[in-house]
Amino acid sequence: MSFGGIEAGGTKWVCAIGTGPEDLREVVTFPTTTPDETIARAAEFFAGGASVAAVGIGSFGPIDLRRDSPTWGRITTTPKPGWASTDIGSALRAVLDVPVAVDTDVNAAALGEHRWGAAVGLDTFCYITVGTGIGGGGMANGRLMHGLQHPEFGHMRIPHDRERDPFDGVCPYHGDCLEGLASGEAIRARWGAPPEDNGDERVWSLEADYIALGLVNAICILSPQRIVLGGGVMKQPQLMSLIRARVSALLAGYTGARELGGDLADYIVKPALGDRAGRHRVARARARLGLSPVVT
Amino acid sequence: MSFGGIEAGGTKWVCAIGTGPEDLREVVTFPTTTPDETIARAAEFFAGGASVAAVGIGSFGPIDLRRDSPTWGRITTTPKPGWASTDIGSALRAVLDVPVAVDTDVNAAALGEHRWGAAVGLDTFCYITVGTGIGGGGMANGRLMHGLQHPEFGHMRIPHDRERDPFDGVCPYHGDCLEGLASGEAIRARWGAPPEDNGDERVWSLEADYIALGLVNAICILSPQRIVLGGGVMKQPQLMSLIRARVSALLAGYTGARELGGDLADYIVKPALGDRAGRHRVARARARLGLSPVVT
Repeated sequence: MSFGGIEAGGTKWVCAIGTGPEDLREVVTFPTTTPDETIARAAEFFAGGASVAAVGIGSFGPIDLRRDSPTWGRITTTPKPGWASTDIGSALRAVLDVPVAVDTDVNAAALGEHRWGAAVGLDTFCYITVGTGIGGGGMANGRLMHGLQHPEFGHMRIPHDRERDPFDGVCPYHGDCLEGLASGEAIRARWGAPPEDNGDERVWSLEADYIALGLVNAICILSPQRIVLGGGVMKQPQLMSLIRARVSALLAGYTGARELGGDLADYIVKPALGDRAGRHRVARARARLGLSPVVT
Repeated sequence: MSFGGIEAGGTKWVCAIGTGPEDLREVVTFPTTTPDETIARAAEFFAGGASVAAVGIGSFGPIDLRRDSPTWGRITTTPKPGWASTDIGSALRAVLDVPVAVDTDVNAAALGEHRWGAAVGLDTFCYITVGTGIGGGGMANGRLMHGLQHPEFGHMRIPHDRERDPFDGVCPYHGDCLEGLASGEAIRARWGAPPEDNGDERVWSLEADYIALGLVNAICILSPQRIVLGGGVMKQPQLMSLIRARVSALLAGYTGARELGGDLADYIVKPALGDRAGRHRVARARARLGLSPVVT
């Protein structure tokens, strides 16, 4: 039995059909244009492909995930033009005629890491992605993090030393929240070059300090057993070790937990599934059908 | 059947016997002195009182709560003189000869609010206390928050504008973390007077801004359905409404969730059980015996 997965991103959508990360049978990627056009392309892909038992969608947000809500599956306040109030969940459910589950892109990725990757066996962990934007999700007590709606790690507030970094931040809502200061978009705006072209040591030292502050806050609030840290910006080779060292310095040995001592190499880790887009969403679809532990 | 509860604080311990908040039969309060003396007084109280089926302890920390840990029930790195590495859990379990459960003071209070107070029916919420120190805990997905160890809300990092507030903070580990800037101890050190004697508007405006930053970070990371906000500092009458207004301004309507619009009067609330110390711990003991939903 095959499942469908959609990574519904703000820049591109990836649709896939398969049974898991080692068995991905069909994949298509297309740019995110208007809601109608983008949703229609996804529907077309699944209509023309192998039949699927269910489809899981990992979407950008914020998105309404409350099952009893009249606006379930609807993107709420995104600054992405044309996409605010777009009903992703119901629109695809109506067209595809199979069960459709929707969650945030980061919760969908967290589910994949929990089932096949860097978070197997854990019940409380974070999945944080630093790319164009910054997102976070994960599991708490063995289930994906939802609560009132879903986490929005990127919009937490962190210390911002304006003498060292006078940049105002790029978040249209909050200016210098974590995403406003440390997303790929922020790096591009502050330094005038995209992250991947930046070899300047100051760029990555500042970036590591901001990400580390975000991770320390996640540790203080959630006490995760591990943090999986991915996204395009994390491809910068020296960044992971700079972040680990800075988190360790900021914690200053306070908690006394063995896992938070040492070099944090087993505590702050890369995603094991890497960027194999779409397959995390297959996990989401499987879960929706009760084929994996109930973690929705 | 009666249960015992202990609020093991850094300044005083409160021991109680009863069945719930409306039926608290014996209560004793004594100052926290040396570990040996303090634990002996608690044991003496229970030995001389009505028999209890189990005892629940809500303790200051950090404390090792991992059931499979050789140092379970032990306070780890507290700056309180003499108390680092104190084994509260096993020491009392050995003396009392009944099941003993240990959790953080804030998780114990959260459990009480969930069973009888301001968090009935919720599955994801925070309980935050602003007193001598700042602590936070709560439930995620219907169970008390533990993860790697337990949350330490007080030690998250928040923006600190040193032009407005040049105070360095009082946390011996982190200086100007949330607790370092906004605890009762910080108010006393910054302004030279204890919080309750301070009528200066600047004191409470600054305090509200710091607490609001902490709450916003908890919202971004956990997405709680409600925040219960207690502790001695919160007795300042104008503080709650200042905090609600500031949280609303900081969120800036980003999430789109209805509950986070408006005046937040139903979202950021006082504890319903107030300061009736000890009775939350009775809930903890009941839970330990399986007399309430398993939420440990």
